[in-house]
Amino acid sequence: MLMAELSEQIRAPKGLSGVSVTETKIAKSEVDGSLIYRGYTIEDLAENASFEETAYLVLYGELPNRTQLTRFNSELRSRMKVDSSVYEIIRDLPKDAHPIDVLRTAASSLGSTDVKRAPHEQELSVAAKMATLVANSYRIETGKNLIEPDSRLTFAENLLYMISGKKPEESDAWTFERELIFYMEHDLNASSFTVRVVASTLADIYSAVTAGLAALKGPLHGGANEGAMQMLLEVKNPDAAAGYVADALAGGKKIVGFGHRIYKQFDPRARLSKQYLKQLLAEKKMDDRLFRLCDALEREMWERKKIPANLDFYAAPVFFTLEIPIPLYTPIFAASRVFGWIAHYNEQVLDNKLIRPEATYVGPKDLKYRPVAER
Amino acid sequence: MLMAELSEQIRAPKGLSGVSVTETKIAKSEVDGSLIYRGYTIEDLAENASFEETAYLVLYGELPNRTQLTRFNSELRSRMKVDSSVYEIIRDLPKDAHPIDVLRTAASSLGSTDVKRAPHEQELSVAAKMATLVANSYRIETGKNLIEPDSRLTFAENLLYMISGKKPEESDAWTFERELIFYMEHDLNASSFTVRVVASTLADIYSAVTAGLAALKGPLHGGANEGAMQMLLEVKNPDAAAGYVADALAGGKKIVGFGHRIYKQFDPRARLSKQYLKQLLAEKKMDDRLFRLCDALEREMWERKKIPANLDFYAAPVFFTLEIPIPLYTPIFAASRVFGWIAHYNEQVLDNKLIRPEATYVGPKDLKYRPVAER
Repeated sequence: MLMAELSEQIRAPKGLSGVSVTETKIAKSEVDGSLIYRGYTIEDLAENASFEETAYLVLYGELPNRTQLTRFNSELRSRMKVDSSVYEIIRDLPKDAHPIDVLRTAASSLGSTDVKRAPHEQELSVAAKMATLVANSYRIETGKNLIEPDSRLTFAENLLYMISGKKPEESDAWTFERELIFYMEHDLNASSFTVRVVASTLADIYSAVTAGLAALKGPLHGGANEGAMQMLLEVKNPDAAAGYVADALAGGKKIVGFGHRIYKQFDPRARLSKQYLKQLLAEKKMDDRLFRLCDALEREMWERKKIPANLDFYAAPVFFTLEIPIPLYTPIFAASRVFGWIAHYNEQVLDNKLIRPEATYVGPKDLKYRPVAER
Repeated sequence: MLMAELSEQIRAPKGLSGVSVTETKIAKSEVDGSLIYRGYTIEDLAENASFEETAYLVLYGELPNRTQLTRFNSELRSRMKVDSSVYEIIRDLPKDAHPIDVLRTAASSLGSTDVKRAPHEQELSVAAKMATLVANSYRIETGKNLIEPDSRLTFAENLLYMISGKKPEESDAWTFERELIFYMEHDLNASSFTVRVVASTLADIYSAVTAGLAALKGPLHGGANEGAMQMLLEVKNPDAAAGYVADALAGGKKIVGFGHRIYKQFDPRARLSKQYLKQLLAEKKMDDRLFRLCDALEREMWERKKIPANLDFYAAPVFFTLEIPIPLYTPIFAASRVFGWIAHYNEQVLDNKLIRPEATYVGPKDLKYRPVAER
């Protein structure tokens, strides 16, 4: 039903739940647990595609041919280097700042240092630099040396390399790349919707991406992957899972990493990540306790509440196994989601109308000012 | 009609035009040209209230009594001072950066330097510091000395003082204060809606305000007051107004400062500002050409298109007459609107549900990955 067919003012459900606010050709998640990017299932892309191919697909609508892919790789890699003035800004921030706050400030500052480029270059520039900023802002805060991106490495390899300082194992990079692909795009999640609202004012891409980062920080959005890992570290033992869930539910505590506005049966990205976690632990010949813990919590939540695990719940232990510091989990999410944000920015601007809803006023009326002495 | 009563997925009109997405007790603008803040008409507040009284009203829901007002004034004034590390960040930005970009980066950095405060203090801190940042970021960029806020001055006086370096005339400060009151709040404008989307993820107030600033930059939102002044300077002569409008309309060019999503007859803030512009020019014994130019453009647009002037169209010449540099018009808007943003942030968080709409997917389906060599 089109709301425009109705004559009365329409009151949307809280949180715009179930309300379609735009058409899109970028991605679609559905209640049955399916997710497509530009027509390709997430399972197909996870199995076959590189991060760069997927980023090209999300940005431009088609998988690239060889020439396009080569050029895109080179465009991205040549823009990863960050100007020293941005590192100066990061150094001016307190050492105990949260990495996602640092990233937001640094990304915002690109809006002043990078603006003489053409719009197409601006968007590739901000996307490419995000990964470098994720790694090096954390390196600055933890007193480590800066690491320049290595143009021979893939996007995923580069990000892992700049975080750890070591060239990653092939299987580590492959698994990490899958998680980045999962985090890239998810139709109108809160940060992408934020980006579209900002885009609808015709503000520039730096403003929109900065706003996306602001939304991503929230524990109900990107912040959830850090929360999930902290919970896993707290519960620790698979045998303790049932008790933890029982206590949390009895205490009315929300269990991080479960539930999703769209997926009610399963999150396809969580299901794939669960499999990759198991493979990764096996490849690294590590104890599978972390896998068993996740599995136990997941089963318990499903049996008791019929709430499925979401991507954050399984991406977190993958990142942990890859020895990525926990405060970087949300920034890493951003380094991938920025490609989705740019796709939404461009789609919004191409057929724009200012996003300016209404509110139903339920406050007082007809009050008259009286001087302060009479109050 | 409640959308929840309908069983099908709902497609909202473009730009969420006419869709109520929440209840609010903060403000209400209506198509008939009325605007209330917390039950008081904008005319009543413009005639009688101070900026600080209005800010208290918007934030806390009631006009303050003497004790509350004294405390609020002192709370605000004592928090206006900005840490030198934030000025260092501003100094690291290029000198030709746009002031609204600088403000966004500086406000974002407060999220790392200011976070040990309690939430109530954080919101007053970011609101108080915004004015200081507006003035001093511009002073840094234009090679001027920093000016510390003077705790004996009102909010409006302080902002004018820090911008110009001179203690303002009483009538200048009074007129400026009216414009700040007009810019403070306007229900679900694009930046306040952005703030609410970010708040709904439970991100902190600094993240939300930074996102608000990102949205405010757009020429379809806060950026319009600068555009309006540039147009007035271009047209220059009241006699040229008719020709300018005719040419612009014939060329399909949008005329900045006209039209509003809500107000179709008149914008009450524009009507009041027009009157204040006339008074201000008279008080300053200045030529009234700028007033006559505005009036001529307004009449022409109404006669030809029945589109009313909006606040930006009349705030711009007021700011110009007060000798405020044009690139500061949007930042000044922000220094006032931040109080509205905080009110929306708090209202959202108090009864929160993640704002996560849906999109209608109209892209390709059922595609299958083929290796790059086969594309």
